[in-house]
Amino acid sequence: MVGQHHRLFDTESPHLETKFRGHTKPELDARSIHRKRSFQCLRHPVSPIDCSPNHTRGWSSALKYAPTRHSYRQVVNQYRKELSVDLYELTMSQVFWRRGMDSSATFSLFFRGYPKDRAYYIASGIDDALDFLEDFHFSADEIRAIRNVTPLSDEFVDFLTDFSFSGTVRAVPEGSIVFAAEPLIEVTGTLIETQIVETMLLNIVTTASLLATKAARIVQAADGRPVVDFGSRRTHGEDAAIEAARASYISGFAGTSNVKAAALHGIPAYGTMAHSFIQAFDNEVTAFAPYADEFPETTTFLVDTYDTLDGVRNAIRVAEQARSRGTNVNAIRLDSGDLAELARAARALMDEAGFPQIRIMASGGLDEHSISQLVASCAPIDAFGVGTRFGTSADAPYIDSVYKLVEIDGRPVIKLSTSKVTKPWAKQVFRRFEDGMMRGDVITRSTS
Amino acid sequence: MVGQHHRLFDTESPHLETKFRGHTKPELDARSIHRKRSFQCLRHPVSPIDCSPNHTRGWSSALKYAPTRHSYRQVVNQYRKELSVDLYELTMSQVFWRRGMDSSATFSLFFRGYPKDRAYYIASGIDDALDFLEDFHFSADEIRAIRNVTPLSDEFVDFLTDFSFSGTVRAVPEGSIVFAAEPLIEVTGTLIETQIVETMLLNIVTTASLLATKAARIVQAADGRPVVDFGSRRTHGEDAAIEAARASYISGFAGTSNVKAAALHGIPAYGTMAHSFIQAFDNEVTAFAPYADEFPETTTFLVDTYDTLDGVRNAIRVAEQARSRGTNVNAIRLDSGDLAELARAARALMDEAGFPQIRIMASGGLDEHSISQLVASCAPIDAFGVGTRFGTSADAPYIDSVYKLVEIDGRPVIKLSTSKVTKPWAKQVFRRFEDGMMRGDVITRSTS
Repeated sequence: MVGQHHRLFDTESPHLETKFRGHTKPELDARSIHRKRSFQCLRHPVSPIDCSPNHTRGWSSALKYAPTRHSYRQVVNQYRKELSVDLYELTMSQVFWRRGMDSSATFSLFFRGYPKDRAYYIASGIDDALDFLEDFHFSADEIRAIRNVTPLSDEFVDFLTDFSFSGTVRAVPEGSIVFAAEPLIEVTGTLIETQIVETMLLNIVTTASLLATKAARIVQAADGRPVVDFGSRRTHGEDAAIEAARASYISGFAGTSNVKAAALHGIPAYGTMAHSFIQAFDNEVTAFAPYADEFPETTTFLVDTYDTLDGVRNAIRVAEQARSRGTNVNAIRLDSGDLAELARAARALMDEAGFPQIRIMASGGLDEHSISQLVASCAPIDAFGVGTRFGTSADAPYIDSVYKLVEIDGRPVIKLSTSKVTKPWAKQVFRRFEDGMMRGDVITRSTS
Repeated sequence: MVGQHHRLFDTESPHLETKFRGHTKPELDARSIHRKRSFQCLRHPVSPIDCSPNHTRGWSSALKYAPTRHSYRQVVNQYRKELSVDLYELTMSQVFWRRGMDSSATFSLFFRGYPKDRAYYIASGIDDALDFLEDFHFSADEIRAIRNVTPLSDEFVDFLTDFSFSGTVRAVPEGSIVFAAEPLIEVTGTLIETQIVETMLLNIVTTASLLATKAARIVQAADGRPVVDFGSRRTHGEDAAIEAARASYISGFAGTSNVKAAALHGIPAYGTMAHSFIQAFDNEVTAFAPYADEFPETTTFLVDTYDTLDGVRNAIRVAEQARSRGTNVNAIRLDSGDLAELARAARALMDEAGFPQIRIMASGGLDEHSISQLVASCAPIDAFGVGTRFGTSADAPYIDSVYKLVEIDGRPVIKLSTSKVTKPWAKQVFRRFEDGMMRGDVITRSTS
């Protein structure tokens, strides 16, 4: 239980109001941006607009209400992923159902092209997607929710009550290297069962492949040095934190800081210490010493809270104490400043003090580009911790993933929209190697 | 139940192998990038490296195993968000516990600066963060997991078994406009209880504020036209899909395509139709007509599957049929091509045919920048659907959010790391308005 909730900007504690004359506390909420038009410091300005009076037509009114308060815990527990369906999957399905359209359809999930700098993908989330399909159905709770918030007919919702996925799936193995336009998953079944799974199938495979691909690039840049996932605090939600840990481990990371991911997926859990830990003590030596006592052998000292090289000297002092007790300090961590320069200076200090075995970990806004530079500069860094830029795939935060109808009742299907033409037929992919190198893929019509 | 799983790239179906001589099917997995070094088409190349022989030191071995297969469903259900804790929060806490360090600490959660183009934030996730804190404890399952995967001592894990959060929280209201360096949440309590909640507190508030801020920019650019969230298929996991719907509704979106978000948060659910729906029929007219039958009044026809203006003509034909039955068609949706040009042409066609009330919705890779241009060009677009670029906050996929120790036992705390200096003391924020416009904030030491 939280003892008390006070709110910054509180409008209900008048004693604060009188303290700073001439200032008032804001009573704004987000919606007031639009209602009051009182806020104009968007750096990409919206220019004044003078359009013909009829260019906007009425639309159902909105912008008025904040969402219902609904417990954060319930979001996780009450409904499963089946309900995270785009409404149109359900409305389209009702039309198929009403018309008795039970044709056999094949949908193909693939990536349209590459984001900047990318030239391959690591297909991931495949096993999760299969799990999702295998147990796809709506619970009584979910059916009730569908009845409440959608325009579906009662009869069709009755049909959904007994609905489960019974189609056929072909997919590449989890962790495969794949290229643009190649199918990762192909789903065959009735129009309804192949259409209704689209939203989450795309979500699962896109998220995991995005993160696995980013991780593979980072592992390649680190050129053999271990990399650990520190991204959980800034991934887009907790799902993504767990997926970042799992997908990156598949791509070659050494482990993760996320304890839940470690428990769920058997991934090694790693951790160092935070600046706040150092600050909770009088100085670095009194902070480092008890940590080394508590976790001999696995201790990594964060040395940049005040002055990095002083921090290294303090780490050495505590390592000497540990040595006198017969234990070792594992590593130091550099989290800011010129990492290459600081690593060289720290290495020299530790080697000189007789600690060549204490390793150096670097972190702080790293990605494959900065890691590649550090490695190329021969900075004596032994391991990397990557957080935000990895966990959000910051330079390329999405993949242009699609799930397209390619075959229906044995006839090919094609879409012609501008710059979005798709290839017909269910497909098979053949890969050619020469001297252990990939030489090219052939995408053909599937004959299986 | 899935009838059959076949895998593309399957290595166990030999009949496929013989069909294309000279090609072999790939047996790669992601880890082979590193083991075989057979894959070299990363566009940002890692240059050959010639460092001194000792520059890399041994680190615990890794890169060898894929994670344990663990059911996707269990990820949601077995453990709660408490377990998504960075390992170091727990190891640091064990040191505090062993030393009896039960000082009163205050941590401040704030955003360090602005990403490109941003000049304000919409604080969101605040209520969720309070929910999270209010019920913070570890279940028996979670305690078992901690015992299994962390180096914590049995005695400290026993302590965690009975642990709950009992600190004090001050926070801005959900949906507040906030600026860099201003606290969104301040948590006061013992060192352990304030430290142990860091990871998920940052995750919750950062994700929601990121999405709410992106949404506010889009709403502002749309200048009164409704905007609907279509992002679920490409957000980073399902958490983010739900959060995108909720945070964007707070910022002024009209609704979401995500049925679960609609059910959980009382947000209007919207949907149109997919290209696959059109393709499942012989032509556009036979596709549009049954949809209009099924959902009179709310039908939005997707017109760009083959040729956009032909699509508009077909929509008009079906609208005429609907009118003869006494019902209306709501809108058409443009999803590709030159949206401004096509909107003008479609508007002319529909006005000419006597359907000035049929509205035009635009979608397809939109964000505040493209919407602002469309609005400035006076394109007759009545509403926008935004997906990927909104749902991933594509131009700025993270916020430099931090959770910093600012006060301990009544004394101020400061961090001096290069370019990461923090301000001491618990804080209060006062906002000044003139003529309904924000004029400036004053951040002071909190005296409450």
